[in-house]
Amino acid sequence: MQKIVLASGNAGKLREFQQLLSGCGFAVVPQSDFFSENAEETGLTFVENAIIKARYACERTGLPAIADDSGIEVDALNGRPGIYSARYAGEGAKDADNNAKLLQELTGVPTEKRTARYHAVLAFMRHAQDPTPILCHGIWEGVILEEPRGEGGFGYDPLFFVPSHNCASAELDKTEKNRISHRGRAMQELLQKLSALIGAQ
Amino acid sequence: MQKIVLASGNAGKLREFQQLLSGCGFAVVPQSDFFSENAEETGLTFVENAIIKARYACERTGLPAIADDSGIEVDALNGRPGIYSARYAGEGAKDADNNAKLLQELTGVPTEKRTARYHAVLAFMRHAQDPTPILCHGIWEGVILEEPRGEGGFGYDPLFFVPSHNCASAELDKTEKNRISHRGRAMQELLQKLSALIGAQ
Repeated sequence: MQKIVLASGNAGKLREFQQLLSGCGFAVVPQSDFFSENAEETGLTFVENAIIKARYACERTGLPAIADDSGIEVDALNGRPGIYSARYAGEGAKDADNNAKLLQELTGVPTEKRTARYHAVLAFMRHAQDPTPILCHGIWEGVILEEPRGEGGFGYDPLFFVPSHNCASAELDKTEKNRISHRGRAMQELLQKLSALIGAQ
Repeated sequence: MQKIVLASGNAGKLREFQQLLSGCGFAVVPQSDFFSENAEETGLTFVENAIIKARYACERTGLPAIADDSGIEVDALNGRPGIYSARYAGEGAKDADNNAKLLQELTGVPTEKRTARYHAVLAFMRHAQDPTPILCHGIWEGVILEEPRGEGGFGYDPLFFVPSHNCASAELDKTEKNRISHRGRAMQELLQKLSALIGAQ
């Protein structure tokens, strides 16, 4: 099986990518098998940060790599926290800190103006100099709640109300979340594009 | 009409974008109406360079911007010249210089191993801090000829044999080239995505 490095230290993401890509003949291995530091995310867009992380993993391992970058765009905050979602309350902030800051920033904003969307961008690079990474972009529309709900997921999931399912993202069944979420959609797009690539060879 | 800046000095490209986007209510204006220098293309992928150019045009004008980056990937040369297509024979190289260098590098390579493809990536940014540019990627498969043919097009068109039309890209009618080329396909994708965006508002 062709090894692909996942530029992430998240065990949940690793399992999801392994399940998704095993059928295509790819063995997804975590970058922590090779090195421990993280690439510096200096990009100003999700796609630039995903490419930076994938390229770094290619450089350090000599293998193809996948990276993802994701975040949430809140309309009442002019799109913030955007690419800074994971560090909204400061470097090293925990999910609870970021959620608290988001609620504070939206104090007094009525429900109909609390629209938001999650973005996930995936980059697959064949090697560090690959000029044409495969790029996938998943979007998930929702509304920011007034207080947290549910115990599942991570990030802003307890505050992210999903109108189609009438619950918070953190209340969704894991399989259902993976089917409809921003990351799930981006991963399905990646699977289609990789399958097409393999089929064309 | 909403003004959009085109991050290019090419009059032909300007006309094409103006025709494409006027139906969506966009007036495409060249960046030379605002400033004369070019952004430094420090990216290692087409998409990074397109984003760099679009972002720079947004910064300098305060308007939404479109940029494109394109090039040719030749299999027998491990993908070269790739993102360096316009400067293959050196900084400031002319098309004829680049074409001559490509022919020289492929000396003795038989037809069946001269496969190549053009890539065009477009980036549309709403503003300089836009974290989710609209990105479009068009690909055009061909074979590098042993000598130049035709007077039309630009870049590597005289050397780019198009199997579906049994001629060089430089021998194609302009309208037909715009329909099937890498840039034409990327532009059609942009039109679809911008139309969907407008329809959703």
